[in-house]
Amino acid sequence: MTDESIVTRRTLMTGVGLGLAAAGMPALAARPGRKFGYAIVGLGSYATKQIMPAFAGCDHAKISALVSGTPAKLEQFGTEYGVPKTHRYSYETFDRIADNPDIDAVYIILPNSMHAEYSIRAARAGKHVMCEKPMAISVAECEAMIAASRTAGKKLMIGYRSRFEPHNQLAIELARGGHVGPTRIITAEHGFPIQPGQWRLDKPLSGGGSLMDIGIYSLNAVRYLTGEEPVDVMAIESTDRADPRFRTVEDRITFLLRFPSGIEATCVSSYSSAHNSYRVIGTQGWIDMEPATPYSGHAMRVRKDGKVTDRTLPPSPKTQFAGQLDHLAQAVLNGTPVIVPGEEGLADLRVIEAIYRSAREGRPVRLQA
Amino acid sequence: MTDESIVTRRTLMTGVGLGLAAAGMPALAARPGRKFGYAIVGLGSYATKQIMPAFAGCDHAKISALVSGTPAKLEQFGTEYGVPKTHRYSYETFDRIADNPDIDAVYIILPNSMHAEYSIRAARAGKHVMCEKPMAISVAECEAMIAASRTAGKKLMIGYRSRFEPHNQLAIELARGGHVGPTRIITAEHGFPIQPGQWRLDKPLSGGGSLMDIGIYSLNAVRYLTGEEPVDVMAIESTDRADPRFRTVEDRITFLLRFPSGIEATCVSSYSSAHNSYRVIGTQGWIDMEPATPYSGHAMRVRKDGKVTDRTLPPSPKTQFAGQLDHLAQAVLNGTPVIVPGEEGLADLRVIEAIYRSAREGRPVRLQA
Repeated sequence: MTDESIVTRRTLMTGVGLGLAAAGMPALAARPGRKFGYAIVGLGSYATKQIMPAFAGCDHAKISALVSGTPAKLEQFGTEYGVPKTHRYSYETFDRIADNPDIDAVYIILPNSMHAEYSIRAARAGKHVMCEKPMAISVAECEAMIAASRTAGKKLMIGYRSRFEPHNQLAIELARGGHVGPTRIITAEHGFPIQPGQWRLDKPLSGGGSLMDIGIYSLNAVRYLTGEEPVDVMAIESTDRADPRFRTVEDRITFLLRFPSGIEATCVSSYSSAHNSYRVIGTQGWIDMEPATPYSGHAMRVRKDGKVTDRTLPPSPKTQFAGQLDHLAQAVLNGTPVIVPGEEGLADLRVIEAIYRSAREGRPVRLQA
Repeated sequence: MTDESIVTRRTLMTGVGLGLAAAGMPALAARPGRKFGYAIVGLGSYATKQIMPAFAGCDHAKISALVSGTPAKLEQFGTEYGVPKTHRYSYETFDRIADNPDIDAVYIILPNSMHAEYSIRAARAGKHVMCEKPMAISVAECEAMIAASRTAGKKLMIGYRSRFEPHNQLAIELARGGHVGPTRIITAEHGFPIQPGQWRLDKPLSGGGSLMDIGIYSLNAVRYLTGEEPVDVMAIESTDRADPRFRTVEDRITFLLRFPSGIEATCVSSYSSAHNSYRVIGTQGWIDMEPATPYSGHAMRVRKDGKVTDRTLPPSPKTQFAGQLDHLAQAVLNGTPVIVPGEEGLADLRVIEAIYRSAREGRPVRLQA
């Protein structure tokens, strides 16, 4: 693994891809047909219902190990996915993944406050890391994760699945390509009425409320639809602290962002109402997605020169989850950069911290461009 | 007119309606079939293309006089609408409307900065006033207008036509009635790409840019959909001052409002992109209007318990314009309050001033509940 790691690291750091990537190829060719192995860390609902079933649609990735604090889950899913007992770990034995060459990467699907610790331990164990969003609960943690993966010469990717979903990819292409004229305004709303009794409502585990969990989709979307980083942030929070769900985390938070080009975005994050949409409004029309970031069933309409056209695409043969899992595998195997590295998660957390600060202090927060 | 004026004034001031209204009726009964006469003040595009044709659909109102600074317009529209030369006025002869008993009210459709002056002069001439929105260009002007109409014992109504449009009326009923659960978030967007060379782009005449002209629809909608006054205002402006259209007025301004009940609103106002929609999001679904406030062609959808239903209504036999014109007529004739009095225009201007202040000073502005 050493040679490949060095290649990967240098490729990431220098941005010089092709020659080094080619140099890294033999390691792959030496094991034809071998798929890139993930250790799934955390066997909660998202892991077991969305991610693990998605491997069936992967061309380059497979589940090679499981990590859980619940022996019954290790037994159940180990049997279901054919993961041998030697490849099942608890959090106590987690660091032994270093000795398992079948594990190329870990996929961290733990409560938010555990992302940094396990990402860093995985990097130190010599593994690439896929980490769920939000990347962590603070900018400082994100920076530590990036440093750990760099030091290890391993890749760090954040689970921004929408970037592997064809409607969102088309929206990015159309928005940034000026299909409806230069973008002026983006509106983005994400939310759902949350059920009580989950770790997401426990601030020490989640790091925050709706913004950390679902509002991040609004934020990430306006960033990928513009390709810019916001410079001004204004936010207002509204939380009924008498509601037992919201004793420690926020319910609703709305925020305005201004980007260097003058694009403005209005965003919604909510734990007490359902939202899943965005709209890019240019000088000549708009690109509308609703639902914008579901697991499936995206719908897209484009208004241009006064005419609205349905741009919903036929179902993709490959799910966004499989696309995401294969992407890291291919990036490692080919020595190419991932499109959503740790820096992308860090960029979201920078804005998230500014949003919280703006709402808390009742003032706008300016970010460095 | 004196008796009726006193009745109207007392009804307005005391809120005690029925008995006094009945007392006012004889004045009407004395002239059976006589319609309430409006003097149209300002013969621009909105007056001549929307308002004046709408009188054909009125049951209680008619055009009885015209006021314009352009003799050719007075001649053209005077002939078209059968307004005799004795009932045509210039701005110099405007105050002579006091002597014309065929004029019950004036409808001020002038550039924004002229609303206050002509509304006040009309009240002093003993006329009821219908004034286009924005009511004026400052809170102080609005207060002076209200005082003038009160002193004259005459009604003052603002041209919020959407309040007489069935989809908006239904939206208000559903939103305030909790049809999709208590409202949590409202998003409202209004804008259009403005053509150069109009008074709307000249701040001394308009008092401001997109917010005064089209963004006020977003603001007014969130106020009528909640029935509340906002307590917190945050705004960001984005204007390319190199664009010759925006030398003196703003292009885009986005703003967040928080209401006493915890409802949050995100609003868009734009002069460089097309928007005409709002959505009320409750705990159980949403009420969506797009277009929300057009002259015609409204469309409404409601999502409740996961199911989306088209709630677009069949065309109304009476236009929103005719409904608005008849409303003031009926309120005067019956001695009942108008639903959009000067206080309604004042409330919008209070928030508009706060939005401008927030954008200018880069800080949130708190309003008194």
